[in-house]
This record gives sequence, C-alpha cells and structure tokens, in this order.
Amino acid sequence: MVDVAVVGAGQTAFGQHPGAMKDMWSEAVRACVESVDGDVSLSHVEELFLGSTAFGGGQLGNTAAYLGEHAGMAGVPARRIENACASSGFALRDGWAAIASGRADLVVVGGLETMNDLTPERKRYWLGVSGDTEWERLAGLTFPGTYAMMARRHFHEHGSSHDDLVHISVKNHDHAVDNEHAQLRKAVTFEKAASGSMIADPLTLYDCCPTSDGAACLLLASAEVARSLTDTPVWMRGSGAASDHLALHDRPSLTSLHATKKAAAQAYAAANIAPSQIDVAEVHDCFTIAELLATEDLGFVEAGGGGAFASEGRGRRNEGATTVNGSGGLKAKGHPLGATGAGQVVEVFKQLRGQAGVRQVDDAEVALTHNVGGSGATCAVHIFGRGLA
Amino acid sequence: MVDVAVVGAGQTAFGQHPGAMKDMWSEAVRACVESVDGDVSLSHVEELFLGSTAFGGGQLGNTAAYLGEHAGMAGVPARRIENACASSGFALRDGWAAIASGRADLVVVGGLETMNDLTPERKRYWLGVSGDTEWERLAGLTFPGTYAMMARRHFHEHGSSHDDLVHISVKNHDHAVDNEHAQLRKAVTFEKAASGSMIADPLTLYDCCPTSDGAACLLLASAEVARSLTDTPVWMRGSGAASDHLALHDRPSLTSLHATKKAAAQAYAAANIAPSQIDVAEVHDCFTIAELLATEDLGFVEAGGGGAFASEGRGRRNEGATTVNGSGGLKAKGHPLGATGAGQVVEVFKQLRGQAGVRQVDDAEVALTHNVGGSGATCAVHIFGRGLA
Repeated sequence: MVDVAVVGAGQTAFGQHPGAMKDMWSEAVRACVESVDGDVSLSHVEELFLGSTAFGGGQLGNTAAYLGEHAGMAGVPARRIENACASSGFALRDGWAAIASGRADLVVVGGLETMNDLTPERKRYWLGVSGDTEWERLAGLTFPGTYAMMARRHFHEHGSSHDDLVHISVKNHDHAVDNEHAQLRKAVTFEKAASGSMIADPLTLYDCCPTSDGAACLLLASAEVARSLTDTPVWMRGSGAASDHLALHDRPSLTSLHATKKAAAQAYAAANIAPSQIDVAEVHDCFTIAELLATEDLGFVEAGGGGAFASEGRGRRNEGATTVNGSGGLKAKGHPLGATGAGQVVEVFKQLRGQAGVRQVDDAEVALTHNVGGSGATCAVHIFGRGLA
Repeated sequence: MVDVAVVGAGQTAFGQHPGAMKDMWSEAVRACVESVDGDVSLSHVEELFLGSTAFGGGQLGNTAAYLGEHAGMAGVPARRIENACASSGFALRDGWAAIASGRADLVVVGGLETMNDLTPERKRYWLGVSGDTEWERLAGLTFPGTYAMMARRHFHEHGSSHDDLVHISVKNHDHAVDNEHAQLRKAVTFEKAASGSMIADPLTLYDCCPTSDGAACLLLASAEVARSLTDTPVWMRGSGAASDHLALHDRPSLTSLHATKKAAAQAYAAANIAPSQIDVAEVHDCFTIAELLATEDLGFVEAGGGGAFASEGRGRRNEGATTVNGSGGLKAKGHPLGATGAGQVVEVFKQLRGQAGVRQVDDAEVALTHNVGGSGATCAVHIFGRGLA
C-alpha cells in the first residue's frame, strides 16, 4: 500500500454565502493550491472526489464534473460522494484508496455545501432526510429532537447535566474567536449559553450548530510526490469507517454511536495509535451532546465520563492531553454539511504544520478527524501525523 | 496493486417498479449472492459503494447506509456515489481501488434507481440536471435534443443517416428478446423503428431509451479470496475514467465524446488490450446515436465509420469481432440511471462465464463496459477478462 500525505488544504470562511457555489469552490481550491510549499499544477491532478449532500436541491446536477471544470480540472475523473454530513469524510477515505492502490499520485478531495440557497422547506428536507425517515422524520422527529433524546438518556444513565453541555458550547465559541474562518466568531458567557432559547429540551440554541455555506479542498499525494512538494507533509496514518442502523430504536444504546466506535477502532489499529496520543481532535459536534458522546466513543475519556471531561475543560486548547475542536467545531466554526469533513482536515493540516497561528496547539504531532452522517448512521475517522509512525 | 475479480453479479428486471426501492435492492443483492459459486456471507463484506442519481428526489436520505442495513450489511462502511448516469460505473472504479489498495478483500458495488416514483416534473428535473444547466437546460434543451444535435452533425460530417441509427435500434431490440431482464423485450421491424413518433429531429421514439426502475449488485474480491470462492472469477483488467465540459459549445467536437476516448485509452493501456480484442461490449446507448459514437470512440471502428458499422450489423451477436449491447443495451434492456453501469457488468459477468444462455457470445474471453454521465461530462470504462492477461 502506497503511503499518502496531505500536501495542501484550504477553505472558505463558513457562513452565509447564498448563490456562491462556484465561487466558494474556486476559493477553496485556490487556498489549497496556495498552501502547497512546492509548485503544483491542477493539470496534474488525476482524480477528484467531491463530498456534498444537498446539491440535488439546487438547479445543478452532474456537479462533480461541473465543479472540476469550473476550477481548472476539466477532464479529471470526478465523482460526487453523498453520505449525509459525512460526505467529505468518505470522499477522503476513497481519495486515499485511489493513491494507496497505486492508481494515482495526486488527488483532490473536496467538500461543498450551499444550504442558504434553499427555501426553508427544502433546507428542512435536506437536513431531515439524513436521519431515519420511516420511523422518525415522518413522525415529526427532527435532528435536535434526536440528539435531545441522546442527551436526556446520558443525563439519566451517567448523571451528566445540561451544564456539561454548556461548557462545550462556551469552549467551542472561545476557540472560534481565534479562527478567521469561523461563522460564529464570538465568545458566549456560561450564563448566556445556559439560558438560550429552548430548541428541543434539553438542547437550547447554544447547543446547536448553525446553518452554513462553505467549501474546503485538500490535495493528497503519494509519498514520493509528497516529498517532492514539501518538507512537512501531513501523513495519513489511519482510516476507519462504519455504518449503523438509521433509526435509534434499532440501536442497543442511545448514549454511544456504534459507527464512531467501530470506525475509531479501525483507524487506531491502522495507525497503531492509542487515543491518549491524539493531540488535536476535530470531532462532529452538530450538537454539544454529540461532542460529549464523541469524547467517550473516541476513547479520550471512559464511557460516562464525557460530562466531567467537558465541565473540567479538558478539551480546551492546551489544557488537556487532547484539544477538542480547537477550530470552534461545527458548533461555532459552522457546519456546511458536505464540507465539514474536509474542513476538519484543513484545521488538522495547519495544526500539524505549526501554521495555526494564535490557535496553535503546542507540540501537535498526531491528530484525528471524526465525521458523522445523520444521527450516527455513518462515520469516518481519520488519523494524521507529522511522521509516518 | 492487488488483483481484483468480480465473483458475483445479479440484478432485477429493469422496468416499472414504482415504490419498490428496498425490494429491488434486496432482490439484486440476493441474486448476486446466489450467483457466487462458493459460500459467501454478507457479514464478511467490508465496503459498500452504491451508485444512484435521483435518490434525493424521494423521501429518503442517507441511502447508502439505509440500503446496506436493509440488505444485511448493517455496520459496513457505505457511501452513495452520484455521477449522473455514470454513478455505478464510478462506484465500480472506487470499489476496485478499495481492494487494490489492500484495505479490503470483499466489496459490494451496487446501482439503483427508482425513476417511476417521481412526478413527471421531478423526473424531467433529475434527467435534465445531468446535462449542462446554465447554457442548455434552462434555455430549453433536453437530452433528446442534445443527442439529436450530435446525430445531425455526424450525418453532416460523415454522411451517416437516420437509417444507420434505425439499425442500432432494431439490433438492440432483437438482442433484448433473449434477455429475461429487459424492459422492452420485443423485436421491432426496420420500418416501424424508422417511422416512430418524432422526439427531437432526427431522433424518434425508437432512438430513445425508456424510463426505468432497477437495481444491480456486484461482489468484488481480492485475487486470493476470489480464487477461494470460484474457479471462474471474472478478472478486472483495466479501469479508465474521465470528465469533460458539460456544455456542448465548450467541446471541440459534437461527434465524439472526449471523456469516452480518454477513459478508454486509460482502460486499454491498463489492461494491455486492443479494441479489436474485445469480444463483448456493453456501451451506453441512451440514444442510438450514442451507441454509434461509442463504437467509434471505443475504437471498434474508425472515426466516421460508425454508420457503416451499424448498418452492416457488425455489432450483432456473433456477427462481428465485437458483440455490442448483447443485453439489449440501455435502448431495450432499459436505463435505470444509477443502476446502468453495474447492470452492464452483470451481463459481462454472465458472458465471460458462459452463463448467458440463448444470448451467449461464442468464445467470449474479454469484455468492456462503457458508462456515460450526462451528455458526456463523465465516463467510466472497464475491461474484464476470463484471465488476468
């Protein structure tokens, strides 16, 4: 298997960019190319893997070829990967395999979403259909409701509380203040986050990520090409992925995402890394409770310990073994569905190269990204390192 | 790079199956598993790549995980690949890479479409958006119109005629009579096909494929696992893929699909095969003119010679070097968008194993599939053999 590295990564600011699909994608591609240390031409790209969920909601189809053409990659084999909010996490997994197989040396992996182009009805639709439809959505259950049930159950089983979730929200807002690409680049006080408008009891406005537009782009290279382009490649050390039952009632637990645990176990084994060795983790906090569960499922704390992990601030930048969502996370950086997985890697790329500026995590050697689709029906986990081992 | 083989392949009949998405997929998976010579359990499948275009038009999302779960593959990493009508052709390419990279030994590649669930408006939308939207669709150009322009230009440049296209239609209907999975399982006379209702001058009803529902499923295995499951694996010998400008006005020619030529060149080189060695070709004849162009672009006949190739019946079963669309093709077997690419491989699997019954091509050793998205914006070409070389 050929070793693979990330040699470039760029993104747009996440936020409100209605009508700017092509511009956003071009901006992300340009930022990615500019981040490469050596000279690279898009004409040498051999494959394009583009993650996006809701393209079908707009006027355009055949969007992978369309956006390849628009960004200087006409002719390059391109495909769109749609896996709900884990679309670009899976695009990354498949882009990696294209190089690992020996078929390609230079691959672009992208993610893109334009949620604010949609009517409110279509926005609800595209968000809703990522969860279970037959038992949940058509009965009226929304995503905030789904995660609210997980939160209530965690409170019940483990004695955690909404205050723990508030700590996650406050932390991620604090981290986002230092991120020029973050949608909600402002701190919130504990008091304010604790008393937000109720969305789905116990989750308030401050427990929920915003609706976002955005694009992110990564350039992957084989070991040989990577070394010719940069002295500081970000090595891909492990990939794990899994699926799970869509409907909550089919799962054995409401307080753990089986797909996360399975994907993480695969990725840790492939990378030969223990959770305690992860310096930087970008995890899928579409709701604060999702981050709490992720810290447990990814092994940063024992099952049931996520509340204490949060309230003790152990995920804050440089305050524990692992900085969790140093970018601000989905909660405050923003969550443009299909762009989220690739966007997580943009952050990791900067952190592992020491280019994260004021939000740099000290001595960041190993990083993890965790990208979830739906309420846990799919998950992709990737592990990156400054070194290959 | 690990060698990869198709060890199982199955499909539903293509036709009218509204409301039967889950049932169709299960039926295709079951047929695929039953086609495997040895014992295989879906619990050993390591990855699922599912090609589909129009899922987003229905009530369901996160469909790869959903359909994995429904067909006995809960937990398996699953993703949907959307690349217009080439969706499952690209799913095949990426499923292959997953094994070739050494990451997996057993992979399911599927394709699925339920066009007849959609309202006429949504059906038009999902077909239309696969082509160019900004310059063509919103100005009123439909797919039949797009291909009609290609036909008119071919007539002008090369002296071909509508009669040549009629020969393709009659041939593919003849072939479909012998295919139990074909949607239009009936012969048509030359006179009838020549005088069909006009759709987009010069294309008549008999030049256009039908609207279809259907599903197809393939089981791929690494060389070692393949040999443990069967004495007659169908080896994957070459994969090629490319994209092109969506809008016709951006292309240098109307009488050749650049993406086809580029993908074919890649696949032939990888397989170390010349076009003349292809015994069985399943090509993307969404319109008869598309088959005419494909016979030229794939090198079965010289540029400009597609009309004569057709009118002389050189693609008829066992009448020339290469049997073209022995299944009936998209024209008569049917064209359930996302299922078409995988469905082509189902035919090839049977032909190369000598299991195609009355439509068996004599001494079929090497086969090719050709799957196009939009009016040529994407293309995937694969080459298969009874042997590895």
